[in-house]
Amino acid sequence: MVKSPEEEHPRKAFGWAAKDTSGVLSPFNFSRRTNGADDVTLKILYCGICHSDLHAVRNEWGNTIYPIVPGHEIIGAVTEVGTNVADFKVGDIAGVGCLVGACHTCESCESDLENYCPQPILTYNSVVPNGTITYGGYSDHIVVPRRYAVRVPEGLLLAAAAPLLCAGITVYSPMKHYGMTEPGRHLGVVGLGGLGHVAVKIGKAFGLKVTVISTSPAKEKEAIQGLGADAFLVSRDPEKMKDAANTMDYILDTVSAVHPLEPLVALLKLNGKLVMVGLPDKPLSINAFSLLFGRKAVGGSVIGGMKETQEMMDFCGKHNITADVELVSMDYVNTAMHRLAKADVKYRFVIDVANSLSN
Amino acid sequence: MVKSPEEEHPRKAFGWAAKDTSGVLSPFNFSRRTNGADDVTLKILYCGICHSDLHAVRNEWGNTIYPIVPGHEIIGAVTEVGTNVADFKVGDIAGVGCLVGACHTCESCESDLENYCPQPILTYNSVVPNGTITYGGYSDHIVVPRRYAVRVPEGLLLAAAAPLLCAGITVYSPMKHYGMTEPGRHLGVVGLGGLGHVAVKIGKAFGLKVTVISTSPAKEKEAIQGLGADAFLVSRDPEKMKDAANTMDYILDTVSAVHPLEPLVALLKLNGKLVMVGLPDKPLSINAFSLLFGRKAVGGSVIGGMKETQEMMDFCGKHNITADVELVSMDYVNTAMHRLAKADVKYRFVIDVANSLSN
Repeated sequence: MVKSPEEEHPRKAFGWAAKDTSGVLSPFNFSRRTNGADDVTLKILYCGICHSDLHAVRNEWGNTIYPIVPGHEIIGAVTEVGTNVADFKVGDIAGVGCLVGACHTCESCESDLENYCPQPILTYNSVVPNGTITYGGYSDHIVVPRRYAVRVPEGLLLAAAAPLLCAGITVYSPMKHYGMTEPGRHLGVVGLGGLGHVAVKIGKAFGLKVTVISTSPAKEKEAIQGLGADAFLVSRDPEKMKDAANTMDYILDTVSAVHPLEPLVALLKLNGKLVMVGLPDKPLSINAFSLLFGRKAVGGSVIGGMKETQEMMDFCGKHNITADVELVSMDYVNTAMHRLAKADVKYRFVIDVANSLSN
Repeated sequence: MVKSPEEEHPRKAFGWAAKDTSGVLSPFNFSRRTNGADDVTLKILYCGICHSDLHAVRNEWGNTIYPIVPGHEIIGAVTEVGTNVADFKVGDIAGVGCLVGACHTCESCESDLENYCPQPILTYNSVVPNGTITYGGYSDHIVVPRRYAVRVPEGLLLAAAAPLLCAGITVYSPMKHYGMTEPGRHLGVVGLGGLGHVAVKIGKAFGLKVTVISTSPAKEKEAIQGLGADAFLVSRDPEKMKDAANTMDYILDTVSAVHPLEPLVALLKLNGKLVMVGLPDKPLSINAFSLLFGRKAVGGSVIGGMKETQEMMDFCGKHNITADVELVSMDYVNTAMHRLAKADVKYRFVIDVANSLSN
């Protein structure tokens, strides 16, 4: 017998959900499991609005299970701790990102790369082995295995730290994996949105020279004065792009729209690497000539494993890196989604969950 | 006053050249510079016929200067040594590959990567700063700066070692640069021609498991029994390709024809790398999805620097690696080119220059 979301688990939960492909969110009563021996429960304080949430509530990837409670950039206060959990206590601040489970037996999981497990359990919209569905952070609380909770360093502004759980690790992980962290090297960051603006800050913290590459000349001032980028390059200006050819060691490409790779690869020096973290929905074209004659490489990366997510949080704590956010109340979420679709946000909406969610 | 090739230098030279886009080679009198203080002169013993030679004599890349003397897989005996050259003596055996000069002041040259210098002087068909043209190894002798001569380890069969100067370094260099040498790892070699068959041997010498990936099922026996590959995969068999998904750590793609990359990328494991060393003349299509979700990368590489070319020769000496060659006389060269165009050679023609070139 299939139980309703409100009855399938013993514990009442409340959040906002989209009920159909309109993507409009509204109040939603559901339920959560009780805190198990390996779990921690968080009272959710803040939750970022990631661009993925927008795709998901509108079923733009074709895999949405309604009703859907989005949200995978979660900061909360620990309210319960399982008997097997020694390193969290009630009252601690913790973060939860895109993942709340994986198989834990495959090569990826055993290498602390749960993000590449072929059977990941995502924080929302995933079917778990018992047949229930996961619900995300646009809600009052969440229960997750301790493995999927990260410690939030003291001193970080909590609302602004929330986006690090997705945007932060998505840009940090490829920089580490592909060796894009050598001080003094030149990093190009393509796209100045939720991911790109964090990439600029993390790049500067690694001691890199950072150039923002954007289609929009209007972003120059905010890139340089607001975020500390060293330079700004308008990708639609062929002269400037030509002048910048062969000057970059690394490029982190955060753009999800289909876009030409060739002009970006041309910016790379010998041995340069371009890493994509956005997901264009059509194949990209690449010229073998430009890869061969500059010994250049194009790679990809998706979020990060839990061990590395903790490392990223600690790095951000040390360098006082957070996202630039616009804090909104839960009843503003539909307007926020609408503005996000038009890229009208600097640079991440974060929902003030604990202060604005009322049943 | 422009002098003819026969008169521009003080020393008479003789070889075979193509005189027009027919690509047909015939005897050709030209001249070489005298041996300078930093030069060595080689009496050419053997010269491999590289696929590039075929493209060049027919002007298929649009940059051929006629008459053209091809050949950049040269083995010769040293006949003269400049006063500044301490480490070669008359009678030594030396090799010359694709390069005979570069700027020597750029970052690439200073990093022993003359192959990525923006002003390389190729062994044939290059204009040198004094306005003369370089002529390659289908000829009686050659004068090159010592920097561009490599020592040939004792014990290697000289005719069969000639192709190492181009085919050998072209596959060795990316394996080193991209870290494709960890014993026990699984290498896929795409294409079983001049480059691919040497890649199999070098891969085995590094202790890799090597699978040959080819469109031609007929090559299975020679790949495994003849060359020592561990496995063979027909790229046109969708079932076999599916079974082999996610099994390879590295892929070296030696194919120059336009071909789909996606089925090859699918063969790679998490963190896998595909490196192209062939040069398809049209852009290739790549799906961001497959790069992101497997953290995979696609790169390129072109021949190698002189220091690494020497390292490769020493490695081949240590492991007794040479190419499988068909030794031909100079007057067979047009037939050999014709057969090469049909891929009718196992796996490299080498011209028995010293024994068959007569004026």
